[in-house]
Amino acid sequence: MGSTFVGNLRISIFGQSHSGGIGVSVDGLPAGEKIDMGALGAFLARRAPGQNSWSTPRKEADLPEFLGGLVNDTTCGAPLAAVIRNSNTRSGDYENLRDVPRPGHADYTAQVKYRGYQDVAGGGHFSGRLTAPLCIAGGICMQILARRGVEIGAHLSRVGNAEDVRFDPVRLDSATLHAAAAKPFPTLDDAAGERMRAEIQSAREALDSVGGEIECAAIGVPAGLGDPMFDGMENRIARIIFAIPAIKGVEFGAGFGASRLRGSENNDPYFMDGGAVRARTNNAGGILGGITSGMPLILRAAVKPTPSIARAQQSVSLSRGTDAELEIRGRHDPCIAPRAVPCVEAALAIALLDAMLEKDRLD
Amino acid sequence: MGSTFVGNLRISIFGQSHSGGIGVSVDGLPAGEKIDMGALGAFLARRAPGQNSWSTPRKEADLPEFLGGLVNDTTCGAPLAAVIRNSNTRSGDYENLRDVPRPGHADYTAQVKYRGYQDVAGGGHFSGRLTAPLCIAGGICMQILARRGVEIGAHLSRVGNAEDVRFDPVRLDSATLHAAAAKPFPTLDDAAGERMRAEIQSAREALDSVGGEIECAAIGVPAGLGDPMFDGMENRIARIIFAIPAIKGVEFGAGFGASRLRGSENNDPYFMDGGAVRARTNNAGGILGGITSGMPLILRAAVKPTPSIARAQQSVSLSRGTDAELEIRGRHDPCIAPRAVPCVEAALAIALLDAMLEKDRLD
Amino acid sequence: MGSTFVGNLRISIFGQSHSGGIGVSVDGLPAGEKIDMGALGAFLARRAPGQNSWSTPRKEADLPEFLGGLVNDTTCGAPLAAVIRNSNTRSGDYENLRDVPRPGHADYTAQVKYRGYQDVAGGGHFSGRLTAPLCIAGGICMQILARRGVEIGAHLSRVGNAEDVRFDPVRLDSATLHAAAAKPFPTLDDAAGERMRAEIQSAREALDSVGGEIECAAIGVPAGLGDPMFDGMENRIARIIFAIPAIKGVEFGAGFGASRLRGSENNDPYFMDGGAVRARTNNAGGILGGITSGMPLILRAAVKPTPSIARAQQSVSLSRGTDAELEIRGRHDPCIAPRAVPCVEAALAIALLDAMLEKDRLD
Amino acid sequence: MGSTFVGNLRISIFGQSHSGGIGVSVDGLPAGEKIDMGALGAFLARRAPGQNSWSTPRKEADLPEFLGGLVNDTTCGAPLAAVIRNSNTRSGDYENLRDVPRPGHADYTAQVKYRGYQDVAGGGHFSGRLTAPLCIAGGICMQILARRGVEIGAHLSRVGNAEDVRFDPVRLDSATLHAAAAKPFPTLDDAAGERMRAEIQSAREALDSVGGEIECAAIGVPAGLGDPMFDGMENRIARIIFAIPAIKGVEFGAGFGASRLRGSENNDPYFMDGGAVRARTNNAGGILGGITSGMPLILRAAVKPTPSIARAQQSVSLSRGTDAELEIRGRHDPCIAPRAVPCVEAALAIALLDAMLEKDRLD
Repeated sequence: MGSTFVGNLRISIFGQSHSGGIGVSVDGLPAGEKIDMGALGAFLARRAPGQNSWSTPRKEADLPEFLGGLVNDTTCGAPLAAVIRNSNTRSGDYENLRDVPRPGHADYTAQVKYRGYQDVAGGGHFSGRLTAPLCIAGGICMQILARRGVEIGAHLSRVGNAEDVRFDPVRLDSATLHAAAAKPFPTLDDAAGERMRAEIQSAREALDSVGGEIECAAIGVPAGLGDPMFDGMENRIARIIFAIPAIKGVEFGAGFGASRLRGSENNDPYFMDGGAVRARTNNAGGILGGITSGMPLILRAAVKPTPSIARAQQSVSLSRGTDAELEIRGRHDPCIAPRAVPCVEAALAIALLDAMLEKDRLD
Repeated sequence: MGSTFVGNLRISIFGQSHSGGIGVSVDGLPAGEKIDMGALGAFLARRAPGQNSWSTPRKEADLPEFLGGLVNDTTCGAPLAAVIRNSNTRSGDYENLRDVPRPGHADYTAQVKYRGYQDVAGGGHFSGRLTAPLCIAGGICMQILARRGVEIGAHLSRVGNAEDVRFDPVRLDSATLHAAAAKPFPTLDDAAGERMRAEIQSAREALDSVGGEIECAAIGVPAGLGDPMFDGMENRIARIIFAIPAIKGVEFGAGFGASRLRGSENNDPYFMDGGAVRARTNNAGGILGGITSGMPLILRAAVKPTPSIARAQQSVSLSRGTDAELEIRGRHDPCIAPRAVPCVEAALAIALLDAMLEKDRLD
Repeated sequence: MGSTFVGNLRISIFGQSHSGGIGVSVDGLPAGEKIDMGALGAFLARRAPGQNSWSTPRKEADLPEFLGGLVNDTTCGAPLAAVIRNSNTRSGDYENLRDVPRPGHADYTAQVKYRGYQDVAGGGHFSGRLTAPLCIAGGICMQILARRGVEIGAHLSRVGNAEDVRFDPVRLDSATLHAAAAKPFPTLDDAAGERMRAEIQSAREALDSVGGEIECAAIGVPAGLGDPMFDGMENRIARIIFAIPAIKGVEFGAGFGASRLRGSENNDPYFMDGGAVRARTNNAGGILGGITSGMPLILRAAVKPTPSIARAQQSVSLSRGTDAELEIRGRHDPCIAPRAVPCVEAALAIALLDAMLEKDRLD
Repeated sequence: MGSTFVGNLRISIFGQSHSGGIGVSVDGLPAGEKIDMGALGAFLARRAPGQNSWSTPRKEADLPEFLGGLVNDTTCGAPLAAVIRNSNTRSGDYENLRDVPRPGHADYTAQVKYRGYQDVAGGGHFSGRLTAPLCIAGGICMQILARRGVEIGAHLSRVGNAEDVRFDPVRLDSATLHAAAAKPFPTLDDAAGERMRAEIQSAREALDSVGGEIECAAIGVPAGLGDPMFDGMENRIARIIFAIPAIKGVEFGAGFGASRLRGSENNDPYFMDGGAVRARTNNAGGILGGITSGMPLILRAAVKPTPSIARAQQSVSLSRGTDAELEIRGRHDPCIAPRAVPCVEAALAIALLDAMLEKDRLD
């Protein structure tokens, strides 16, 4: 299991990096939702590799083919199913990984779990390539949400020690929310983007990689979504965001920072704003008791550095039971955080649409 | 929904702070597991209030009564069901909260979601009191895990800006893992504990509260637990930990710190250690690709400051549509993080036992 | 697992026949639903034993105590939790069943699955007594449904070879639907009821038992509930009805009879009836493609004869590995089908409310 | 929802009759299971149309293409994903069905649920063609089960009023179990098959269709699979079997017949048989208390007559709100029961493998 999300939506992601193809089935989407294929393609392009200097030059033509769920590009109630062919299906380079696992990758843990039967080619089912179907699902959810006034955006908030400005958690507007998506490098502050690119370039030159952090938000979220306990919005969102490889931490609102605050600082005082209840601060990140408050929903996710680095690394030979040195060939993104930005948006979109599909009352 | 965990285990938590009682049903426990009731009681006592100077003086006698699932204190395959009576069931003090929501609490979001029908007394189903059934479930899971060599422990790693030492993520031993649990104040370093208590006392005197951070770990975890994507161990654990009220962030291994590292620093090199594969560092926190590596499993959770503070706060009157000032009466923990320590352990225990109950292979 | 229903509602049933108590948690009920406790009690009384000549004289005072989920008898959004104490908790009579399993009961299969750890007293978690919490859940669902014009009723359609008349699947009205519930013996036709009672009396005198069949229906069901494939209404209902011990078959509409028909007979022709689409016949039992048609929902369930009979039976001694003769002491219903009538109603009510809580469209 | 099975296995079925393709994703299969593609193809051929005189001449080349989950035809732990292209994707003939629903089909109920957005071409997602992906999933489960000694077979036990002999529920052997699968017409008794074919031919000549019944069994099933209550084997199997269109009833063991029996007849007495516990009769159909007993698992499913018949039928025009006559063009199977035989086997195989993947005990 693991590749199936079970909520009000049921999402199955399948395929491996070098298998016949990858794809996704999304069950539970409301019927009658028009999909803007151009917008979807543009969204998917934001995570695609090979577009610019800071990402791997390997080209993907990640154009999904829809096998089901649509009539005239409009959801018909049947599961939406999309596949992307894998053009790169050679696997010769990878067989050694079954013996000498790459540090920081899932090679060793998969070996234990699947007893050597796992597909090692290109990382198999653990490959970052599997975020493409996640983005198909999420990109479609985003369009359905946007039609109801719920907008999602994200930016690269840090690479190494270079930091972007943060979203204003109270006054976040649509233009700011989407500002980073329109840029070749997804930051709010272009100077911060320059510093981050310098961090990435420095890592690349050192045959190394570097981590980062993504800030993601939603505005227009109605109050009242989510549940207490196991199905709080934090739980739901975290459950999906950690499906993105390399994410090692998630925080909401003030997050870990809240743990340093006094209650009088962290509590968000309410006030009436033209008939609506709003809060003067938003350390809660728009979630209280697991339920949305109507304030912007704010989260940050930590992205570890790309584990594939060109330097020689220490590993082991599982067959021989000895230490072994490993060199990883091929070219890899020295920082995957920029490409993970739309993935985090996709994860949040899935969680929010899923929550909106919960029915709290009967007529 | 929300109060039911659905995995290989199915856990239902019910009751409100001032209803007839609270309780839990745990479906899916293996039969034949002896429960040490004394050890369970001792575990529950760690989260119980009223024990010492830093927590609320309200007394609870949180002794669970088991209605089902046991024969001679041994699991029988039927759902384990336990209830705790609420002795404190008056609710007169709370009716005002339906109108004037407390900042930082779920009063307002519950009001929107449940349209005024929610139980407001003592926080209702959102009360921290509902972590008692979570700890019953988790405490039992811990005993079952311990019998298989999987041990779980936690400590209070920070209160405000006072920090404890961290677990050694590579050489963490059983004694260190359980050290904090045995102390009246759950830190590894007693001097750090003194500083934290000073932070709490200072907050209390200022009619305020303060947040904190908990570090939790498991040792003896077999490699190969968990799944890729939506059911990775990070996803599973986060899904349960965020069920604890006041948790606003979760990170694994180096966590947000990993986002500042280079790949060459963050990757954990493998070596052979007496026939076993181990890693020299453990920035992964024992999880790669969502699957356990056999290294200690390490996580930290951010706890926000208690939202109930004695100072006057700004809120609104929902009935009048005006701003309103709110004073919260009663005594509350100025810092809930110490009592949340066993709750985080419980959450991790549930996630680990649930993962161990997944069957990856057939005979 | 098994004792937790997972859908839009999440229902956990716990307890054993002779444990401290039995109970149920129902998560996902809409807030604001008033529970008529008198009506619920009357509904539960229909399955309670000891009321009349055809059922076991053992008395139960199955009055549920609600521990959570209600404020002033109105659902508050938190899980509804109810427990019933077991007054009869002696277990001495049953220990022999661990060795010599009763034919037709779950003694042997539970022994294999739970390796001897199962609670054998009174049938443990397999006891028909566990239908009381099912009826609590279902009885509450029925009240919520009735408020929306969905009414559920059932009658005992057969005992042995004595048959009641059937519901008219097209013109079923409220009075007929509820007619059997108001009678001491739940048939539509009193003469048929007499014949059934004679069958039961005859079985009792022969130290034997006898099976039966229950017909259950819902009227006022809106068209459009349910889904194709695994979550069709047949699937959903069957999944819950088979939770009632002793049910060995379920059919919808013409059911097995449809397998003998021609398409021209079985197809239900549509016609316009005052602006509404209706069908002239209802062999589909109100379900097409897994989705309700707006016609009455009709099903029948087969109830096997009570396996506990006073005659000596052939069994085995598991400890000695030899054949063994078994005599079951105590008094048992010679026919459990009459008491199963409200249980089938409860199952249908749960399935229907669960389906109504699915959200097919967004605003 | 509806098209996703959620258990220990998670199965997503997608596509419509005339969309780009249909397919299935199966998450949770154990790694290391070799798939015999020839055997799978032979199994799929049994449900394929166009093979003989009693089925529709429309040809399908239902050869699945595997996009994921396999390495060298061996499961690798990642979800197994297969797609079948739809060569027949014209949809012009069907638009009228949005207005004038076919009696006995899901046209009307889908129209209500999906508000006109449903795919009507060829029945859309409700088409019997969607049993092909079900059979891919089930066929693979059958191979995995067979390797553990669990064998599944079925036969056409009735068409109209022509009946086959039944499986011997106690002494069912492998040869008998698989006898029907090897024949062009899937009965045990060839003379019965002749009578059934005559029924079908007679229906065809009358421009009509006819229903049937399928008996399915599994031998070699270990005792101890399944759970009480909602996850009993009956519940699990019924939940999947009703996913096959046209199934209107399911019974286990003596089934509805048990409702006519006395307890002394229906109880299956145990005896020791060479050290193993066996029963002299098998009215329970191999399931007691929801758990397998080790006796053959026996069930029957009722198949309604094909709703598409060549005769004119009464329907309505939804757009005009008037009665309307409908003639269905094209050629359809006058009896779908023969082709449903492998589908019922597939459903049982999924339920059994799913149950075997439940982990009842820890080491």
